[in-house]
Parts: sequence; structure tokens; C-alpha cells
Amino acid sequence: MGAGNVIVGQSGGPTSVINSSLVGVFKTARDAGCPHVYGMRNGIEGLLQERWVDMSMYVRNDLDIELLKRTPSSFLGTCRFKLPDYTKDEDTYKKIFAVLKKLDIKHFFYIGGNDSMDTIDKLSKYAAFINSDITFIGIPKTIDNDLAMTDHTPGYGSAAKYIASAMKEIIRDANTYPTESINIVEIMGRDAGWLTCAATLSRSEDCAGPDLISLPETVFDYDTFIKQINEARSRKKVITIAVSEGIKTADGKYVCEANKRSMSEDAFGHKTLGGTALYLADFLGAELGIKSRGIVFSTLQRCASHIVSRRDITEAFTAGADGVQLALSGETGKMIIFDRISNNPYQLKTSSCPASAVANVEKKVPLEWLVNNGSYVTNDFFEYARPLIIGELSPFMVDGLPRHLFID
Amino acid sequence: MGAGNVIVGQSGGPTSVINSSLVGVFKTARDAGCPHVYGMRNGIEGLLQERWVDMSMYVRNDLDIELLKRTPSSFLGTCRFKLPDYTKDEDTYKKIFAVLKKLDIKHFFYIGGNDSMDTIDKLSKYAAFINSDITFIGIPKTIDNDLAMTDHTPGYGSAAKYIASAMKEIIRDANTYPTESINIVEIMGRDAGWLTCAATLSRSEDCAGPDLISLPETVFDYDTFIKQINEARSRKKVITIAVSEGIKTADGKYVCEANKRSMSEDAFGHKTLGGTALYLADFLGAELGIKSRGIVFSTLQRCASHIVSRRDITEAFTAGADGVQLALSGETGKMIIFDRISNNPYQLKTSSCPASAVANVEKKVPLEWLVNNGSYVTNDFFEYARPLIIGELSPFMVDGLPRHLFID
Repeated sequence: MGAGNVIVGQSGGPTSVINSSLVGVFKTARDAGCPHVYGMRNGIEGLLQERWVDMSMYVRNDLDIELLKRTPSSFLGTCRFKLPDYTKDEDTYKKIFAVLKKLDIKHFFYIGGNDSMDTIDKLSKYAAFINSDITFIGIPKTIDNDLAMTDHTPGYGSAAKYIASAMKEIIRDANTYPTESINIVEIMGRDAGWLTCAATLSRSEDCAGPDLISLPETVFDYDTFIKQINEARSRKKVITIAVSEGIKTADGKYVCEANKRSMSEDAFGHKTLGGTALYLADFLGAELGIKSRGIVFSTLQRCASHIVSRRDITEAFTAGADGVQLALSGETGKMIIFDRISNNPYQLKTSSCPASAVANVEKKVPLEWLVNNGSYVTNDFFEYARPLIIGELSPFMVDGLPRHLFID
Repeated sequence: MGAGNVIVGQSGGPTSVINSSLVGVFKTARDAGCPHVYGMRNGIEGLLQERWVDMSMYVRNDLDIELLKRTPSSFLGTCRFKLPDYTKDEDTYKKIFAVLKKLDIKHFFYIGGNDSMDTIDKLSKYAAFINSDITFIGIPKTIDNDLAMTDHTPGYGSAAKYIASAMKEIIRDANTYPTESINIVEIMGRDAGWLTCAATLSRSEDCAGPDLISLPETVFDYDTFIKQINEARSRKKVITIAVSEGIKTADGKYVCEANKRSMSEDAFGHKTLGGTALYLADFLGAELGIKSRGIVFSTLQRCASHIVSRRDITEAFTAGADGVQLALSGETGKMIIFDRISNNPYQLKTSSCPASAVANVEKKVPLEWLVNNGSYVTNDFFEYARPLIIGELSPFMVDGLPRHLFID
């Protein structure tokens, strides 16, 4: 193939380490002799509007590379754009390939989740259809950790580290008062509870961790919930609960749908969730007559780059770097995946799988890792997740605040 | 006076650095030869129940001292307990002084805010009334920065650093999408907007900072608010707003009272606020038809010890240490205060004032530091606040998470 021009985009919800994957693509492509590494502004949507940058304009030296690794959210901007089926709407594809031709692109990288792998799959298939030799490679990214085929996903480790650290602090805060209280922490996760499980990582020598968790993988039942809380109250004053935003009752309705806040849908038809913790706090306050507080991590769990997992940052870089090697070897329509060799010592290797095997599929927390009606995890989860939050990467502090790299 | 036994308590809402003041009292008292340093569990309320610890049982060496500095929330536990007037209810005072006599206490320290200084004032006056020679000294503490007499309060700098750092991350996250949005961040502050002002510290070379702020110091007006937002929208797509939880409309009602969530009152008659950002996000979403999101920092802004200001930690320690020196010199009924000598270079000295001058008084943000109907700060605020967030203190990380010292 040779080292031609590269274009890279970022799509879907941002993470704290998505730019480390971007750096992995950029640095590896430049080191391999690729003349230009372009960045799509706002993913495919921006590419269709012919908005891109030459990455070298912004990443000029090794210090910029380190700064970009420490910059949260998608440096290039993101989008939620679903490609049509090319047999029904070829115009969009013609437009994309015209832009790629204009920039003389040989390799296309898309850093994203299962929706983004749908994009990689479709573009690679269209390329085959029109006999284009441009390669399309997906770099996995999501805090949700719900991508199929891969052991875990870059972005999850740092989100998990933030969640576990913040849980420790919240639990310490709540326990300082002599009074009974229930503290419900709402964590992202529409259909998979990986992030909520991460709250249990706060359990350690100096912290009891959350008393119970509730995930989308199991049915939420109010009676069981109250029973579990009362059981915990018989032992202690301060109860802490971690719930996924996407928990549902047996009738298939989101718990937060009981809340008055309306729900909108995004381009992929996903409902925008929120309000689960506040609703449950109101409910428990009324039901049990105890001070109940809802705490929502909101966007901070995906952009708190001031406390990232060094292992996650490093693996995110590797995913980008190995994606470039894969493309240079002539592969297309693939996503980089992680295979875990062992937990102790933690050992990992990268390989790849067809993007189609990841597109539009969601990997859930295994039910055999859950106990007590899904209200806690087994040791399997701890062995799986603990290695992912190890190590720190200090932010570059300027005037007391973390510094970021940005496009102005 | 000589170096007799010491007892120290923590009261009111916790902070990330309140334990640094505790360490300042402990270490200075021990170094001065005080035989025992006792800690009240849950402040005065615990003391009345004869619950205390000998601090030496938990803080055994210099490593423990460093670990306690890095531990958020009140190590000894806290309370919200208002002492009665001793001319009306002397029993409570008799009980307290009986406990102090039992422990042979010479010096009493209370780390807290204006309610706690009410306690110091009352206890010192009762001591004079019964001719007790026990000294009572207040150590200032509050993230709210609303204590009178002192330039600023330990706890504010770290909360401000957390808020400004998180704002930078939230703004970067919000700007990654190509669509219009309004992001309203709710920050603690019932009657004073110091913490909300801290959101503006995120304005720097790599961040525009919030577009507008709204404080309890000014009247909240919906029409002005919409007008300001529309003005900002004419320049940019993503609007970020920082609001205090305690903003009120001209009729004296909290904005969050318009929300359905009911409000309870604490022992001091303070209403429990919350819901301002979510309510305003709903309102703006309906009014302007733009995606609007409410983000609430909640308790994390007072317990996120994983990102503290080193200057704040150091000053909190000094406040405790100098409180001990003040007590050993025979003073009583006083609170330690900070006097700022200069901004550039930043220079500070401690002195003291009567606790009565601080008790039940709230220091607000000066109106002359606000511009555009209170929607932004002048440079005076930046010069005041920037020095307070400088410097970091790395957490002690164990298995990827910050380690804390605790009483089991």
C-alpha cells in the first residue's frame, strides 16, 4: 500500500482518552511517512461539509502530543450521524469519496463506538463496491465499555477511575453527618451497567463502597429495592446506591420516565435519559421518611481528564497506533480489539475483528457476575476492572488549572 | 497558661481541606507539649453524648499526617447543632463543661463557619460567666467563602479550583458537538455567590469560560436572563451558564422553589436548596427550543480532594496551627483570620478577631465586582481569587484510587 495521506475522525460521545487515540493515529502515521494527517471536524458530518484540519498545524511537537493526550472531549469535534444504506442513497457516499479523493486519502480512521463501527463497515463495503483502495479502520472508544469482541474499550478505565474516586469522596462526605441518609448516585449507561459496576471499585480498606447497585441488565423492582435498602439500614446509617440512568421496570419503562422531565431522541433513536437518581431520591424520601439525595455525575464522568487512568491513556494510544499498522498492512473494514492474556500480571495484546461484528451490538455485564438480584458484583468483576484504573497521568497545570490543546 | 489538654471539633458542611486544619491543631498542640489532643466525634453534638477520640490513636506518624491532609470531609464527623442561650437553658452548658472537666481540657478548638463561631462565642462567654479558664478558639472553614472579617476562608480555594477545572472540562465537552446547546451548571451558595464566581476562573488562553453567571447577590430576572442568553447566542453555538443554587426572583422566592421538589429546613432554619439548574434547563428548553442541560456539582465541589489547591491546604493548616498559638497565649472567644498583604506577590498573614464578629454574619460578593446586571465579574475578582487556586497536592494513590485516613 505505502504510506499515503491519512484522515481521522472522532464520533459519538467524547471520553477523557479519545484524544490519546487520535495522537496514536497521528504520531504513528507521521512516523510511517504518511505525508498528511488530516482531521475531520465533527466526524463524517463535518467531512460532508468539507471541514477538516491538517493535524500538523496544531500538533507541532512532542509537548503538543503530551498536551493533546491530557485534553478531554473530542479535539476534532464529534457528531452523531448515521450513514444511509448506499443502495438507497448513494449521493452521501459519492460526496464522501469525492472529498477523500480531493485530499488524496489512502487511509481513513474513525474513533468511536458501535454506531461509528457501522460507519466504518458501510464505508469499507462501499469502497469495495466502487473498487476504491482506501482502507477504513475503526478505533474503539466509549466510556460505556459496551463494544462487542474486545475485552474492554479505551475510555472505560478512566471513567471507571473517576467514578470510583468520586464515589469514595461522596461516601466519605455522606458519612460525616450523624444522621441517616440515602445517597443515590446516577451513572451513565443506557443499556449496559459497566460504569455503574465501576462504583463498586471504591470498596477498599478505607471505604465500604456503595451498598447496592442497579443496572439495566436486571429488572428494577421497587419492592425489592426498598427491601434491600431496609436490610442495609439495619446495619448502618448512611446508605449509598449507584444506579444506571437506563434502569427499567418490568413493563419495559425507564424509571426516569416516571419523572416529569421529557425525553428526546438522538439521530440513532436513542432516548436521552436523566433524572433517575432525583426521582428515586424523591421516592425514597417520601416512602421511608429519610433524607435522600440524588447525585448525578453527568458529563464529568466522560471528560474529567484531571483524573485519568494511565493504563487507559496508554491503551487508547496503542489502539490508534495499531490501527495505523493494520491499515498500512492493507486491511479494511476492521476494528482494533483488545485480547486479555492474563489478569495477574495484567497482560494485553491487540488484534482486530470485522467492524460489522461490533456495529450496532451492545455487550452487557455478564449476569453471572451479578449477585443478590443484581444489586452487587462478584469478584470476577473486580479482577476484570481493577487493572483498568491503575496509574495516573498528571495534568499540565497552568495558573492552577489543567491545560488543554484546542482548535480555535 | 501552659500546654494543657486540647479538644478539637469540626462542624457544618465539610470541605476538602478541613482535615488540614485539624492536622494543624493536632501537630502544633503536640509539638507545644499538650499531653492529649482529643477529637469530638460529630462536633458539639457528639461531645454532649460523650463521644470523642484521642487523636494520637489515629494520627500516629508523619505519614498519617500527610494522609489526613489528603482526606476530604470531616475526619471526626460533623454536626449542625445550635447552642441555646445560656440564660435560658444552662443545662446544655453544664453538660459540656462537665465533659471538658472530665478530660481536663484547657483549650477548645472548633473548625467551622459562621454557625460554628456562634458556638465559640457562646461557649467563651459562658466560660467567663462561670470563671472557667478554658480557652475557645474558632478556626475558619467553609467552601462558601462567606465569613466576615477574613480575606478568604480555608476550603474556598480548593472548591474554586475544582469548580474552575470541572467547568473547563464541561465547556470542552459541550463544544465538541456541532449543535446549539445551553449548559447550566448549578453551584453551591445559598446567599453568597463566591463559588459561582469561581466558575469564571476557567476563562484562560484555552477556554472561554462561562458566558454568564447568576448569583444570589443580584435579583434573578427571567427576561434579562433570556436577553443575555440570546445576546450570547448571536456570537456562539454553545452557551455555558453558572448559577448559584440560591438565586431568587424579585419576589424573594428561590428559583428552585418553582421546581416541584420540596424543600426542608436544617437546625439553623436554612432551606435545603436544589434543582435550580434542572428547572432553568427545562425552562430554557421550552422557551428557546434548544437542547438545554442542567449539571449539578452537588457534594463533589466540597469533597473532591483529588484536586485541591496546595495553597488552600497549606493555609488551612496554618489556620489550625496559629489557632493553637493564639490559645496558648491566653486568648479566647476569637477566630483566626487571614489578612492579605499583597496580590503580587501573594502575601498573607494571620491575625484574629472576636468570634462574635463572624457569628451569623454573611460576607457577600461586592456588587462593584459585578458587571452586566451581575452576569459577570470584574478583574478585581480574578486578582482576588486566582492566587487561591494555585498549586497541587498529589493524592496518595493505592490500587488506582486516592487513599484516605478514617476512623473505623
